[in-house]
Amino acid sequence: MNHSQLFERIRKKRSFLCVGLDPEIDKIPAFLRKEKDPILEFNKRIIDATHKYAVAYKPNVAFYECYGTAGWTTLEKTVKYIKDIKSGLFVIADAKRGDIGNTSKMYAKAFLENMPFDAVTVAPYMGEDSVTPFLAFKNKWVVLLALTSNKGADDFQYHNEDGIKLFERVLSVSQKWGTIDNIMYVVGATRAEMLKDIRRIVPEHFLLVPGVGAQGGSLEEVSKYGMNSKCGLLVNSSRGIIFADSSENFDKAAGQKAHELQLEMEKYLSERNLI
Amino acid sequence: MNHSQLFERIRKKRSFLCVGLDPEIDKIPAFLRKEKDPILEFNKRIIDATHKYAVAYKPNVAFYECYGTAGWTTLEKTVKYIKDIKSGLFVIADAKRGDIGNTSKMYAKAFLENMPFDAVTVAPYMGEDSVTPFLAFKNKWVVLLALTSNKGADDFQYHNEDGIKLFERVLSVSQKWGTIDNIMYVVGATRAEMLKDIRRIVPEHFLLVPGVGAQGGSLEEVSKYGMNSKCGLLVNSSRGIIFADSSENFDKAAGQKAHELQLEMEKYLSERNLI
Repeated sequence: MNHSQLFERIRKKRSFLCVGLDPEIDKIPAFLRKEKDPILEFNKRIIDATHKYAVAYKPNVAFYECYGTAGWTTLEKTVKYIKDIKSGLFVIADAKRGDIGNTSKMYAKAFLENMPFDAVTVAPYMGEDSVTPFLAFKNKWVVLLALTSNKGADDFQYHNEDGIKLFERVLSVSQKWGTIDNIMYVVGATRAEMLKDIRRIVPEHFLLVPGVGAQGGSLEEVSKYGMNSKCGLLVNSSRGIIFADSSENFDKAAGQKAHELQLEMEKYLSERNLI
Repeated sequence: MNHSQLFERIRKKRSFLCVGLDPEIDKIPAFLRKEKDPILEFNKRIIDATHKYAVAYKPNVAFYECYGTAGWTTLEKTVKYIKDIKSGLFVIADAKRGDIGNTSKMYAKAFLENMPFDAVTVAPYMGEDSVTPFLAFKNKWVVLLALTSNKGADDFQYHNEDGIKLFERVLSVSQKWGTIDNIMYVVGATRAEMLKDIRRIVPEHFLLVPGVGAQGGSLEEVSKYGMNSKCGLLVNSSRGIIFADSSENFDKAAGQKAHELQLEMEKYLSERNLI
Protein backbone atom coordinates (compact mmCIF):
# COMPACT_ATOMS: atom_id res chain seq x y z
CA MET A 1 0.00 0.00 0.00
CA ASN A 2 1.38 3.43 -0.87
CA HIS A 3 0.54 6.94 0.35
CA SER A 4 -2.31 7.51 -2.13
CA GLN A 5 -3.81 4.09 -1.52
CA LEU A 6 -3.79 4.67 2.22
CA PHE A 7 -5.56 8.01 1.71
CA GLU A 8 -8.13 6.25 -0.47
CA ARG A 9 -8.76 3.72 2.30
CA ILE A 10 -9.29 6.60 4.72
CA ARG A 11 -11.74 8.29 2.35
CA LYS A 12 -13.65 5.09 1.79
CA LYS A 13 -13.93 4.24 5.49
CA ARG A 14 -14.39 7.89 6.51
CA SER A 15 -11.96 7.08 9.28
CA PHE A 16 -8.27 7.35 10.14
CA LEU A 17 -8.60 5.12 13.17
CA CYS A 18 -5.91 2.64 14.12
CA VAL A 19 -6.92 0.14 16.82
CA GLY A 20 -4.08 -0.83 19.14
CA LEU A 21 -4.20 -4.53 20.01
CA ASP A 22 -2.33 -4.54 23.33
CA PRO A 23 -4.15 -7.28 25.23
CA GLU A 24 -3.22 -7.97 28.84
CA ILE A 25 -4.41 -11.27 30.19
CA ASP A 26 -5.46 -9.71 33.52
CA LYS A 27 -7.66 -7.18 31.76
CA ILE A 28 -9.50 -9.36 29.28
CA PRO A 29 -12.98 -10.57 30.30
CA ALA A 30 -12.83 -13.49 32.72
CA PHE A 31 -15.10 -15.74 30.62
CA LEU A 32 -12.50 -15.77 27.81
CA ARG A 33 -9.74 -17.14 30.00
CA LYS A 34 -11.06 -20.69 29.66
CA GLU A 35 -10.35 -20.55 25.90
CA LYS A 36 -7.30 -22.37 24.57
CA ASP A 37 -5.78 -19.09 23.39
CA PRO A 38 -7.70 -16.40 25.31
CA ILE A 39 -5.78 -13.50 23.78
CA LEU A 40 -6.39 -14.66 20.22
CA GLU A 41 -10.08 -15.10 20.98
CA PHE A 42 -10.18 -11.64 22.55
CA ASN A 43 -8.43 -10.11 19.52
CA LYS A 44 -10.73 -11.83 17.04
CA ARG A 45 -13.83 -10.50 18.75
CA ILE A 46 -12.35 -7.00 19.02
CA ILE A 47 -11.42 -7.10 15.33
CA ASP A 48 -14.85 -8.37 14.29
CA ALA A 49 -16.51 -5.57 16.24
CA THR A 50 -14.25 -2.71 15.14
CA HIS A 51 -12.98 -3.32 11.59
CA LYS A 52 -15.84 -1.44 9.95
CA TYR A 53 -14.67 1.72 11.72
CA ALA A 54 -10.90 1.34 11.41
CA VAL A 55 -8.33 1.59 8.62
CA ALA A 56 -5.49 0.08 10.62
CA TYR A 57 -4.55 -2.22 13.48
CA LYS A 58 -1.44 -2.03 15.60
CA PRO A 59 -0.55 -5.00 17.80
CA ASN A 60 2.20 -4.00 20.19
CA VAL A 61 4.63 -6.91 20.03
CA ALA A 62 5.58 -6.69 23.72
CA PHE A 63 2.13 -7.92 24.72
CA TYR A 64 2.71 -11.14 22.74
CA GLU A 65 6.44 -11.59 23.27
CA CYS A 66 5.90 -11.67 27.04
CA TYR A 67 4.27 -15.11 26.54
CA GLY A 68 7.26 -16.48 24.64
CA THR A 69 6.63 -18.96 21.84
CA ALA A 70 2.91 -19.17 22.60
CA GLY A 71 2.60 -15.40 22.41
CA TRP A 72 4.46 -15.30 19.12
CA THR A 73 1.96 -17.80 17.72
CA THR A 74 -0.91 -15.59 18.90
CA LEU A 75 0.69 -12.61 17.13
CA GLU A 76 1.07 -14.57 13.87
CA LYS A 77 -2.55 -15.72 14.03
CA THR A 78 -3.79 -12.22 14.89
CA VAL A 79 -2.19 -10.54 11.88
CA LYS A 80 -3.37 -13.36 9.63
CA TYR A 81 -6.90 -12.95 10.97
CA ILE A 82 -6.87 -9.24 10.14
CA LYS A 83 -5.48 -9.84 6.65
CA ASP A 84 -8.05 -12.59 5.98
CA ILE A 85 -10.82 -9.99 6.25
CA LYS A 86 -9.49 -8.84 2.86
CA SER A 87 -10.69 -5.27 3.20
CA GLY A 88 -7.31 -3.62 2.83
CA LEU A 89 -6.67 -3.11 6.53
CA PHE A 90 -3.22 -1.67 7.21
CA VAL A 91 -1.40 -3.61 9.94
CA ILE A 92 1.47 -2.15 11.93
CA ALA A 93 3.83 -4.24 14.08
CA ASP A 94 4.51 -1.90 16.97
CA ALA A 95 7.90 -3.39 17.71
CA LYS A 96 10.21 -0.37 18.07
CA ARG A 97 13.12 -2.35 16.67
CA GLY A 98 16.43 -1.06 15.31
CA ASP A 99 19.95 -2.49 15.19
CA ILE A 100 23.06 -2.47 12.98
CA GLY A 101 22.33 -3.13 9.29
CA ASN A 102 22.64 -6.92 9.00
CA THR A 103 20.59 -7.29 12.20
CA SER A 104 17.84 -4.83 11.26
CA LYS A 105 17.50 -6.84 8.07
CA MET A 106 16.55 -9.87 10.18
CA TYR A 107 13.95 -7.85 12.10
CA ALA A 108 12.56 -6.55 8.81
CA LYS A 109 12.25 -10.13 7.53
CA ALA A 110 10.48 -11.20 10.72
CA PHE A 111 7.66 -8.69 10.33
CA LEU A 112 7.53 -7.71 6.65
CA GLU A 113 8.35 -11.00 4.95
CA ASN A 114 7.53 -13.86 7.31
CA MET A 115 4.45 -12.14 8.66
CA PRO A 116 2.09 -10.06 6.53
CA PHE A 117 2.55 -6.77 8.38
CA ASP A 118 2.45 -3.59 6.28
CA ALA A 119 4.66 -1.60 8.61
CA VAL A 120 6.99 -1.78 11.61
CA THR A 121 7.73 0.89 14.18
CA VAL A 122 11.47 1.56 14.39
CA ALA A 123 13.58 3.46 16.94
CA PRO A 124 15.92 6.03 15.36
CA TYR A 125 18.81 6.12 17.87
CA MET A 126 21.21 4.02 15.77
CA GLY A 127 20.71 6.10 12.61
CA GLU A 128 20.38 5.46 8.90
CA ASP A 129 21.79 1.94 8.48
CA SER A 130 19.55 0.72 11.30
CA VAL A 131 16.45 1.96 9.45
CA THR A 132 17.10 1.45 5.72
CA PRO A 133 16.90 -2.39 5.79
CA PHE A 134 13.20 -2.00 6.65
CA LEU A 135 12.73 0.23 3.58
CA ALA A 136 13.91 -2.45 1.15
CA PHE A 137 10.52 -4.19 1.16
CA LYS A 138 8.16 -3.04 -1.58
CA ASN A 139 4.89 -1.45 -0.45
CA LYS A 140 5.93 -1.79 3.18
CA TRP A 141 6.54 1.01 5.65
CA VAL A 142 8.76 2.17 8.46
CA VAL A 143 7.01 4.07 11.22
CA LEU A 144 9.88 5.94 12.83
CA LEU A 145 9.71 7.22 16.39
CA ALA A 146 9.99 11.00 16.44
CA LEU A 147 8.17 12.53 19.42
CA THR A 148 6.68 9.95 21.74
CA SER A 149 3.69 10.35 24.06
CA ASN A 150 5.37 9.33 27.32
CA LYS A 151 6.96 11.47 30.06
CA GLY A 152 10.43 10.14 29.23
CA ALA A 153 10.21 11.86 25.83
CA ASP A 154 11.56 14.92 27.65
CA ASP A 155 14.82 13.20 28.58
CA PHE A 156 16.46 13.10 25.14
CA GLN A 157 14.00 13.98 22.36
CA TYR A 158 14.26 17.73 23.17
CA HIS A 159 18.11 17.72 23.24
CA ASN A 160 18.70 20.96 21.37
CA GLU A 161 21.55 21.69 18.97
CA ASP A 162 21.49 25.26 17.64
CA GLY A 163 17.74 25.50 17.99
CA ILE A 164 17.06 22.09 16.46
CA LYS A 165 15.63 19.53 18.82
CA LEU A 166 16.59 15.89 18.45
CA PHE A 167 13.10 14.80 17.32
CA GLU A 168 13.15 17.57 14.70
CA ARG A 169 16.51 16.34 13.46
CA VAL A 170 15.11 12.80 13.29
CA LEU A 171 12.27 14.12 11.13
CA SER A 172 14.43 16.18 8.79
CA VAL A 173 17.34 13.76 8.39
CA SER A 174 15.31 10.55 8.06
CA GLN A 175 12.92 11.78 5.37
CA LYS A 176 15.87 11.57 2.96
CA TRP A 177 16.15 7.80 3.60
CA GLY A 178 12.82 7.00 1.97
CA THR A 179 9.72 8.66 0.58
CA ILE A 180 6.24 9.62 1.70
CA ASP A 181 5.26 6.18 0.40
CA ASN A 182 7.37 4.22 2.86
CA ILE A 183 8.12 6.35 5.94
CA MET A 184 5.69 7.69 8.48
CA TYR A 185 6.36 9.07 11.96
CA VAL A 186 5.19 8.47 15.50
CA VAL A 187 4.10 11.74 17.09
CA GLY A 188 2.34 11.49 20.43
CA ALA A 189 -1.11 13.02 20.78
CA THR A 190 -0.26 14.28 24.24
CA ARG A 191 1.86 16.91 22.46
CA ALA A 192 -0.75 17.94 19.87
CA GLU A 193 0.33 21.58 19.92
CA MET A 194 3.72 20.47 18.55
CA LEU A 195 2.05 19.11 15.43
CA LYS A 196 1.92 22.58 13.89
CA ASP A 197 5.73 22.88 13.93
CA ILE A 198 6.15 19.23 12.94
CA ARG A 199 4.00 19.78 9.84
CA ARG A 200 6.52 22.46 8.72
CA ILE A 201 9.24 19.77 8.65
CA VAL A 202 7.15 16.90 7.27
CA PRO A 203 4.18 18.49 5.48
CA GLU A 204 3.25 15.39 3.46
CA HIS A 205 4.19 12.34 5.51
CA PHE A 206 1.66 10.28 7.38
CA LEU A 207 1.89 10.58 11.16
CA LEU A 208 0.91 7.75 13.47
CA VAL A 209 -0.47 9.39 16.57
CA PRO A 210 -0.79 7.34 19.75
CA GLY A 211 -1.94 8.68 23.07
CA VAL A 212 -5.57 9.59 22.31
CA GLY A 213 -7.85 8.33 25.07
CA ALA A 214 -6.19 6.63 28.06
CA GLN A 215 -3.04 8.76 27.71
CA GLY A 216 -5.05 11.99 27.56
CA GLY A 217 -4.60 13.23 23.98
CA SER A 218 -7.40 15.04 22.15
CA LEU A 219 -8.57 13.86 18.73
CA GLU A 220 -9.88 17.32 17.94
CA GLU A 221 -6.52 18.98 18.59
CA VAL A 222 -4.57 16.30 16.73
CA SER A 223 -6.83 16.75 13.71
CA LYS A 224 -6.67 20.54 13.90
CA TYR A 225 -2.88 20.73 13.95
CA GLY A 226 -1.85 17.52 12.21
CA MET A 227 -4.21 16.95 9.29
CA ASN A 228 -2.95 17.75 5.79
CA SER A 229 -4.50 17.67 2.32
CA LYS A 230 -4.30 13.85 2.19
CA CYS A 231 -5.40 13.44 5.81
CA GLY A 232 -1.85 12.39 6.74
CA LEU A 233 -2.94 10.95 10.06
CA LEU A 234 -3.49 7.55 11.60
CA VAL A 235 -4.74 8.05 15.13
CA ASN A 236 -4.33 5.10 17.43
CA SER A 237 -6.48 4.16 20.37
CA SER A 238 -5.71 0.99 22.33
CA ARG A 239 -6.99 0.78 25.88
CA GLY A 240 -9.85 3.24 25.24
CA ILE A 241 -11.33 0.76 22.78
CA ILE A 242 -10.24 -2.74 23.72
CA PHE A 243 -10.83 -2.35 27.45
CA ALA A 244 -13.96 -0.18 27.16
CA ASP A 245 -15.88 -2.89 29.00
CA SER A 246 -14.96 -6.11 30.78
CA SER A 247 -18.30 -7.92 30.58
CA GLU A 248 -19.42 -10.51 28.03
CA ASN A 249 -20.36 -7.55 25.85
CA PHE A 250 -16.81 -6.17 25.74
CA ASP A 251 -16.73 -6.48 21.96
CA LYS A 252 -19.91 -4.49 21.48
CA ALA A 253 -18.55 -1.79 23.79
CA ALA A 254 -15.29 -1.76 21.81
CA GLY A 255 -17.22 -1.48 18.54
CA GLN A 256 -19.23 1.40 19.96
CA LYS A 257 -16.11 3.27 21.09
CA ALA A 258 -14.51 2.72 17.67
CA HIS A 259 -17.70 3.94 16.00
CA GLU A 260 -17.73 7.10 18.13
CA LEU A 261 -14.16 7.85 17.12
CA GLN A 262 -14.95 7.11 13.48
CA LEU A 263 -17.88 9.55 13.54
CA GLU A 264 -15.71 12.25 15.06
CA MET A 265 -13.03 11.56 12.43
CA GLU A 266 -15.64 11.72 9.68
CA LYS A 267 -16.59 15.16 10.93
CA TYR A 268 -13.00 16.44 10.75
CA LEU A 269 -12.44 14.90 7.31
CA SER A 270 -15.65 16.48 6.11
CA GLU A 271 -14.75 19.91 7.53
CA ARG A 272 -11.56 19.78 5.49
CA ASN A 273 -13.47 18.67 2.38
CA LEU A 274 -11.45 15.45 2.22
CA ILE A 275 -14.57 13.30 1.88
CA MET B 1 24.64 -11.24 39.62
CA ASN B 2 25.88 -7.83 40.82
CA HIS B 3 28.88 -5.69 39.82
CA SER B 4 31.33 -7.37 42.26
CA GLN B 5 30.18 -10.87 41.35
CA LEU B 6 30.66 -10.12 37.67
CA PHE B 7 34.18 -8.90 38.37
CA GLU B 8 34.85 -12.08 40.34
CA ARG B 9 33.70 -14.17 37.36
CA ILE B 10 36.10 -12.21 35.15
CA ARG B 11 38.99 -12.77 37.57
CA LYS B 12 38.25 -16.47 37.83
CA LYS B 13 37.99 -17.00 34.06
CA ARG B 14 40.80 -14.52 33.31
CA SER B 15 38.54 -13.28 30.57
CA PHE B 16 36.01 -10.56 29.84
CA LEU B 17 34.84 -12.18 26.64
CA CYS B 18 31.22 -12.15 25.57
CA VAL B 19 30.37 -14.46 22.66
CA GLY B 20 27.70 -13.10 20.36
CA LEU B 21 25.31 -15.84 19.21
CA ASP B 22 24.01 -14.34 15.95
CA PRO B 23 23.60 -17.44 13.79
CA GLU B 24 22.55 -17.06 10.17
CA ILE B 25 21.26 -20.19 8.53
CA ASP B 26 23.20 -19.47 5.31
CA LYS B 27 26.46 -19.21 7.20
CA ILE B 28 26.31 -22.26 9.44
CA PRO B 29 28.10 -25.38 8.24
CA ALA B 30 26.12 -27.27 5.59
CA PHE B 31 26.22 -30.60 7.44
CA LEU B 32 24.21 -29.12 10.33
CA ARG B 33 21.32 -28.12 8.11
CA LYS B 34 19.91 -31.64 8.17
CA GLU B 35 19.35 -31.37 11.93
CA LYS B 36 15.83 -30.79 13.20
CA ASP B 37 16.87 -27.44 14.67
CA PRO B 38 20.15 -26.56 12.91
CA ILE B 39 20.62 -23.26 14.72
CA LEU B 40 20.17 -24.79 18.16
CA GLU B 41 22.65 -27.52 17.26
CA PHE B 42 25.08 -24.91 15.97
CA ASN B 43 24.72 -22.83 19.13
CA LYS B 44 25.20 -25.84 21.41
CA ARG B 45 28.46 -26.80 19.73
CA ILE B 46 29.71 -23.19 19.77
CA ILE B 47 28.81 -22.92 23.46
CA ASP B 48 30.50 -26.25 24.30
CA ALA B 49 33.67 -25.13 22.54
CA THR B 50 33.86 -21.59 23.92
CA HIS B 51 32.41 -21.47 27.42
CA LYS B 52 35.73 -22.12 29.13
CA TYR B 53 37.03 -18.86 27.66
CA ALA B 54 33.97 -16.66 28.04
CA VAL B 55 32.15 -14.97 30.90
CA ALA B 56 29.09 -14.02 28.88
CA TYR B 57 26.93 -14.87 25.88
CA LYS B 58 24.81 -12.49 23.90
CA PRO B 59 22.22 -13.93 21.50
CA ASN B 60 20.93 -11.16 19.26
CA VAL B 61 17.17 -11.70 19.27
CA ALA B 62 16.71 -10.61 15.62
CA PHE B 63 18.49 -13.77 14.44
CA TYR B 64 15.84 -15.89 16.18
CA GLU B 65 12.79 -13.70 15.73
CA CYS B 66 13.24 -13.83 11.96
CA TYR B 67 12.15 -17.50 12.14
CA GLY B 68 8.95 -16.68 14.02
CA THR B 69 7.67 -19.14 16.60
CA ALA B 70 10.31 -21.72 15.72
CA GLY B 71 13.08 -19.16 16.19
CA TRP B 72 11.67 -18.09 19.51
CA THR B 73 11.79 -21.72 20.66
CA THR B 74 15.43 -21.91 19.58
CA LEU B 75 16.20 -18.78 21.61
CA GLU B 76 14.51 -20.22 24.71
CA LYS B 77 16.44 -23.48 24.36
CA THR B 78 19.71 -21.65 23.74
CA VAL B 79 19.56 -19.57 26.90
CA LYS B 80 18.49 -22.62 28.90
CA TYR B 81 21.43 -24.58 27.50
CA ILE B 82 23.86 -21.87 28.61
CA LYS B 83 22.32 -21.64 32.07
CA ASP B 84 22.37 -25.45 32.46
CA ILE B 85 26.17 -25.37 32.31
CA LYS B 86 25.87 -23.89 35.82
CA SER B 87 29.15 -22.04 35.73
CA GLY B 88 27.73 -18.57 36.31
CA LEU B 89 27.70 -17.49 32.68
CA PHE B 90 26.12 -14.06 32.19
CA VAL B 91 23.56 -14.07 29.40
CA ILE B 92 22.46 -10.92 27.61
CA ALA B 93 19.37 -10.72 25.38
CA ASP B 94 20.52 -8.30 22.70
CA ALA B 95 17.03 -7.08 21.94
CA LYS B 96 17.34 -3.27 21.89
CA ARG B 97 13.81 -2.91 23.22
CA GLY B 98 12.19 0.16 24.78
CA ASP B 99 8.60 1.45 24.88
CA ILE B 100 6.25 3.36 27.17
CA GLY B 101 6.22 2.12 30.77
CA ASN B 102 3.46 -0.49 30.78
CA THR B 103 4.81 -1.91 27.51
CA SER B 104 8.47 -1.99 28.56
CA LYS B 105 7.30 -3.96 31.57
CA MET B 106 6.04 -6.67 29.20
CA TYR B 107 9.38 -6.77 27.36
CA ALA B 108 11.17 -6.99 30.70
CA LYS B 109 8.98 -9.94 31.70
CA ALA B 110 9.68 -11.67 28.39
CA PHE B 111 13.43 -11.73 28.88
CA LEU B 112 14.07 -11.38 32.62
CA GLU B 113 11.21 -13.39 34.10
CA ASN B 114 9.99 -15.89 31.50
CA MET B 115 13.47 -16.58 30.18
CA PRO B 116 16.55 -16.76 32.42
CA PHE B 117 18.47 -13.87 30.83
CA ASP B 118 20.60 -11.76 33.15
CA ALA B 119 20.36 -8.62 31.05
CA VAL B 120 18.59 -6.98 28.13
CA THR B 121 19.92 -4.31 25.79
CA VAL B 122 17.60 -1.29 25.75
CA ALA B 123 17.37 1.72 23.40
CA PRO B 124 17.31 5.07 25.23
CA TYR B 125 15.29 7.25 22.83
CA MET B 126 12.05 7.14 24.84
CA GLY B 127 13.71 8.09 28.13
CA GLU B 128 13.41 7.12 31.78
CA ASP B 129 10.00 5.44 31.96
CA SER B 130 10.93 3.24 28.99
CA VAL B 131 14.00 1.95 30.84
CA THR B 132 13.07 1.71 34.53
CA PRO B 133 10.65 -1.25 34.16
CA PHE B 134 13.68 -3.37 33.24
CA LEU B 135 15.43 -2.26 36.45
CA ALA B 136 12.69 -3.64 38.70
CA PHE B 137 14.07 -7.20 38.47
CA LYS B 138 16.50 -8.14 41.22
CA ASN B 139 20.02 -9.06 40.11
CA LYS B 140 19.14 -8.32 36.49
CA TRP B 141 20.63 -5.66 34.28
CA VAL B 142 19.82 -3.10 31.63
CA VAL B 143 22.48 -2.68 28.98
CA LEU B 144 21.65 0.76 27.60
CA LEU B 145 22.74 1.87 24.13
CA ALA B 146 25.06 4.85 24.39
CA LEU B 147 27.53 5.00 21.47
CA THR B 148 26.99 2.26 18.91
CA SER B 149 29.54 0.76 16.53
CA ASN B 150 27.71 1.37 13.25
CA LYS B 151 28.03 4.21 10.75
CA GLY B 152 24.55 5.48 11.56
CA ALA B 153 25.76 6.35 15.08
CA ASP B 154 26.86 9.68 13.54
CA ASP B 155 23.31 10.64 12.59
CA PHE B 156 21.94 11.41 16.04
CA GLN B 157 24.27 10.20 18.82
CA TYR B 158 26.59 13.20 18.33
CA HIS B 159 23.75 15.76 18.36
CA ASN B 160 25.41 18.42 20.49
CA GLU B 161 23.71 20.67 23.05
CA ASP B 162 26.08 23.17 24.65
CA GLY B 163 29.06 20.87 24.19
CA ILE B 164 27.23 17.77 25.44
CA LYS B 165 26.65 15.11 22.82
CA LEU B 166 23.48 13.03 22.94
CA PHE B 167 25.31 9.82 23.88
CA GLU B 168 27.06 11.69 26.72
CA ARG B 169 23.69 12.93 27.95
CA VAL B 170 22.37 9.37 27.81
CA LEU B 171 25.29 8.26 29.98
CA SER B 172 25.00 11.07 32.53
CA VAL B 173 21.20 11.19 32.84
CA SER B 174 20.55 7.45 32.86
CA GLN B 175 23.06 6.56 35.56
CA LYS B 176 20.66 8.18 38.04
CA TRP B 177 17.97 5.64 37.13
CA GLY B 178 19.85 2.69 38.57
CA THR B 179 23.22 1.74 40.01
CA ILE B 180 26.48 0.19 38.84
CA ASP B 181 24.88 -3.11 39.86
CA ASN B 182 22.06 -2.95 37.31
CA ILE B 183 23.03 -0.64 34.44
CA MET B 184 25.81 -1.08 31.93
CA TYR B 185 26.33 0.66 28.59
CA VAL B 186 26.92 -0.30 24.98
CA VAL B 187 29.97 1.51 23.62
CA GLY B 188 31.21 0.40 20.21
CA ALA B 189 34.81 -0.75 19.88
CA THR B 190 35.12 1.03 16.54
CA ARG B 191 35.26 4.24 18.58
CA ALA B 192 37.80 3.07 21.16
CA GLU B 193 39.42 6.50 21.44
CA MET B 194 36.11 7.83 22.81
CA LEU B 195 36.36 5.47 25.78
CA LYS B 196 38.74 7.84 27.58
CA ASP B 197 36.10 10.59 27.67
CA ILE B 198 33.32 8.11 28.38
CA ARG B 199 35.18 6.86 31.45
CA ARG B 200 35.07 10.43 32.84
CA ILE B 201 31.26 10.26 32.79
CA VAL B 202 30.85 6.62 33.89
CA PRO B 203 34.05 5.67 35.71
CA GLU B 204 32.64 2.60 37.45
CA HIS B 205 29.94 1.13 35.20
CA PHE B 206 30.50 -1.94 33.12
CA LEU B 207 30.65 -1.28 29.38
CA LEU B 208 29.55 -3.85 26.82
CA VAL B 209 31.77 -3.34 23.82
CA PRO B 210 30.73 -4.80 20.47
CA GLY B 211 32.60 -4.34 17.24
CA VAL B 212 35.88 -6.17 17.95
CA GLY B 213 36.80 -8.42 15.03
CA ALA B 214 34.52 -8.34 11.97
CA GLN B 215 33.60 -4.70 12.57
CA GLY B 216 37.26 -3.66 12.93
CA GLY B 217 37.64 -2.68 16.60
CA SER B 218 40.88 -3.36 18.50
CA LEU B 219 40.83 -5.27 21.77
CA GLU B 220 44.11 -3.64 22.80
CA GLU B 221 42.72 -0.12 22.38
CA VAL B 222 39.45 -0.94 24.08
CA SER B 223 41.34 -2.36 27.06
CA LYS B 224 43.76 0.58 27.17
CA TYR B 225 41.06 3.26 27.23
CA GLY B 226 38.11 1.43 28.74
CA MET B 227 39.39 -0.79 31.56
CA ASN B 228 38.89 0.37 35.13
CA SER B 229 39.88 -0.99 38.55
CA LYS B 230 37.17 -3.71 38.38
CA CYS B 231 37.84 -4.46 34.71
CA GLY B 232 34.52 -2.77 33.80
CA LEU B 233 34.46 -4.34 30.36
CA LEU B 234 32.63 -7.08 28.55
CA VAL B 235 34.01 -7.28 25.02
CA ASN B 236 31.79 -9.01 22.51
CA SER B 237 32.84 -10.93 19.44
CA SER B 238 30.21 -12.59 17.27
CA ARG B 239 31.12 -13.35 13.66
CA GLY B 240 34.87 -13.48 14.41
CA ILE B 241 34.23 -16.49 16.65
CA ILE B 242 31.10 -18.26 15.46
CA PHE B 243 31.92 -18.08 11.75
CA ALA B 244 35.69 -18.60 12.13
CA ASP B 245 35.38 -21.76 10.03
CA SER B 246 32.58 -23.38 8.02
CA SER B 247 33.85 -26.98 8.00
CA GLU B 248 32.86 -29.84 10.32
CA ASN B 249 35.47 -28.45 12.71
CA PHE B 250 33.77 -25.07 13.01
CA ASP B 251 33.38 -25.52 16.74
CA LYS B 252 37.08 -26.22 17.29
CA ALA B 253 37.94 -23.13 15.24
CA ALA B 254 35.48 -21.08 17.30
CA GLY B 255 37.01 -22.42 20.51
CA GLN B 256 40.47 -21.51 19.27
CA LYS B 257 39.41 -17.94 18.37
CA ALA B 258 37.77 -17.56 21.78
CA HIS B 259 40.89 -18.92 23.47
CA GLU B 260 43.10 -16.46 21.59
CA LEU B 261 40.93 -13.57 22.74
CA GLN B 262 40.90 -14.93 26.30
CA LEU B 263 44.70 -15.09 26.35
CA GLU B 264 44.95 -11.53 25.10
CA MET B 265 42.42 -10.43 27.74
CA GLU B 266 44.38 -12.28 30.44
CA LYS B 267 47.44 -10.27 29.41
CA TYR B 268 45.63 -6.94 29.80
CA LEU B 269 44.07 -7.98 33.12
CA SER B 270 47.48 -9.03 34.35
CA GLU B 271 49.16 -5.81 33.24
CA ARG B 272 46.63 -3.90 35.35
CA ASN B 273 47.22 -6.25 38.32
CA LEU B 274 43.56 -7.30 38.27
CA ILE B 275 44.40 -11.00 38.38
